[in-house]
Amino acid sequence: MSNGTASTGTATGQLESPSLADVQAAAARIEPYIHHTPIMRCSAIDEIVGASVHFKCENLQKVGAFKFRGACNTVLSLSEKEIENGIATHSSGNHGAAVALAARLRGTTAVVVMPSNTSAVKQAAVAHYGARIVHCEPNDESRRRTLEAIIAEEGRTLVHPFDDVRVIAGQGTAALEFLEQVPDLDIIMTPVGGGGLLSGTATVVAALSPKTRVIGAEPAGADDTYQSFRAGHIIPVGVPDTIADGLRTTVGELTFPIIARHVSDIVRVSEEAIVEAMRLTWQRTKLIVEASAAVPLAALLEGTVDVRDARVGIIISGGNVDLDALPW
Amino acid sequence: MSNGTASTGTATGQLESPSLADVQAAAARIEPYIHHTPIMRCSAIDEIVGASVHFKCENLQKVGAFKFRGACNTVLSLSEKEIENGIATHSSGNHGAAVALAARLRGTTAVVVMPSNTSAVKQAAVAHYGARIVHCEPNDESRRRTLEAIIAEEGRTLVHPFDDVRVIAGQGTAALEFLEQVPDLDIIMTPVGGGGLLSGTATVVAALSPKTRVIGAEPAGADDTYQSFRAGHIIPVGVPDTIADGLRTTVGELTFPIIARHVSDIVRVSEEAIVEAMRLTWQRTKLIVEASAAVPLAALLEGTVDVRDARVGIIISGGNVDLDALPW
Repeated sequence: MSNGTASTGTATGQLESPSLADVQAAAARIEPYIHHTPIMRCSAIDEIVGASVHFKCENLQKVGAFKFRGACNTVLSLSEKEIENGIATHSSGNHGAAVALAARLRGTTAVVVMPSNTSAVKQAAVAHYGARIVHCEPNDESRRRTLEAIIAEEGRTLVHPFDDVRVIAGQGTAALEFLEQVPDLDIIMTPVGGGGLLSGTATVVAALSPKTRVIGAEPAGADDTYQSFRAGHIIPVGVPDTIADGLRTTVGELTFPIIARHVSDIVRVSEEAIVEAMRLTWQRTKLIVEASAAVPLAALLEGTVDVRDARVGIIISGGNVDLDALPW
Repeated sequence: MSNGTASTGTATGQLESPSLADVQAAAARIEPYIHHTPIMRCSAIDEIVGASVHFKCENLQKVGAFKFRGACNTVLSLSEKEIENGIATHSSGNHGAAVALAARLRGTTAVVVMPSNTSAVKQAAVAHYGARIVHCEPNDESRRRTLEAIIAEEGRTLVHPFDDVRVIAGQGTAALEFLEQVPDLDIIMTPVGGGGLLSGTATVVAALSPKTRVIGAEPAGADDTYQSFRAGHIIPVGVPDTIADGLRTTVGELTFPIIARHVSDIVRVSEEAIVEAMRLTWQRTKLIVEASAAVPLAALLEGTVDVRDARVGIIISGGNVDLDALPW
């Protein structure tokens, strides 16, 4: 699928990547619309993992996920002509709600292609923000074809979930805030699905706090980024098998090179650890985090990352959960 | 039961009540140990209730409830002689954990009498902070006798859950912070069980923001304060029937006169509205609130309080929930 920018590469074959200045410009652009999300600490979790953990609460962001940063930056960056016939995307969750809200704020319309098996809660969120939902079969091929047909028929502009420099720059604004709030972190961790949040975070941290290690955490049941990181090229995810529904995607063509260059490591976690970390966060911090958001803490619980006595930052990616289908 | 202070009345028969200065002194005393809890807003909830609602998040307080403020103030106020043999209380939940932590911080021991049917989660919290749990039968008579026996045998000092001026002053510190954070509220609401939080809040608001109306919200299935407020004297709760397990107590002898004097109204809510408000808060704010904490919002959902276009403050009293036994 096209990434929705004018060009995904330059004449020299170099793929586009956002600069720190792009992230700073994104932060200024989305400033009136986003929440500056708080940092939470929890002494009980610190004791359990043996580190000082700082949670950046993007579950408290508009639409309940960091996704609004990237969607908002992208939609605000579009020309009048590009929004004339509205925008479109595909999503089984948070990106769809983010695009729907961004479209409403920009005064245009949005279509979100959603797999027919998407949870009612997530469909309701997209509908709540006024987007039109078009169902597709629950597979990548049907998603892509359904979206392409809508774009062709209706002349809408694609807002990609991650593989777009404007989306990556928008996601990077969470790390920009985080470093201002907690300047001297040894490690920053994010979950990784398509890689928008991780690549945006890595861009900012490499420029502003190069001593801070950036680590991506991925479910073992969807470990394409882990495999790709070690192989040096993208290895698609195959059939993902994880409760972390936001992380079932293969890492992107634009996000992967940024990750390969600026990220210290990608670690994998078990499904059991994801559920344990999710439940521990609910119980101890009183914050609702979705399974995908619990993946970095799961890595700490499993001891996969050496964080002894370290100052660790974790970006809590989202908090949209079907309260009728909890994994315990 | 004795209220644990040296005297519950004066020579003139006037019951003790804390002054604003007592609350301010409590705030200074507990300052090193408590969290200054944040205010949360939620545009979706504002739309639903037609008001600007500010949530003071005492679910993010130490031990997950406002109760730590009062317990901490009381335990820090005790003389060396009073803590020599440790302290004791009875509780089916948050007050027990609060006393346990306060005892640990003061370097003394605590015994918490808990009904034998108390949930494992709440017992675990008390044990986590190092208190000894003594079980009793699940009725007021057994609670009182078991606690009296321990105090008599072990020479411990009682820390009452609510009917103690030091406890009331400590609970009032939440409102002190709240008014600093959001100065111009039209209404402040709290749930009401024994009345410690409501009477402490009313004390502060009457002194610092007399135009702000203080309203207590109570489950219809445990409406002793509602009845008492209208009768002008305490009418015991009878057999409470509510999911809001923190609010099953009868209002206290010290808390009731403060409530009668400074509170604008007590309103009642249905069990259905409590569950709806609890779930709505989880879904929309991503904050875990316990059933008792959802009672004020339940009153707004039922339209029992006229809040049209008002600036409303709600103290979210706690967030300790058994995640294996959700009410939906």
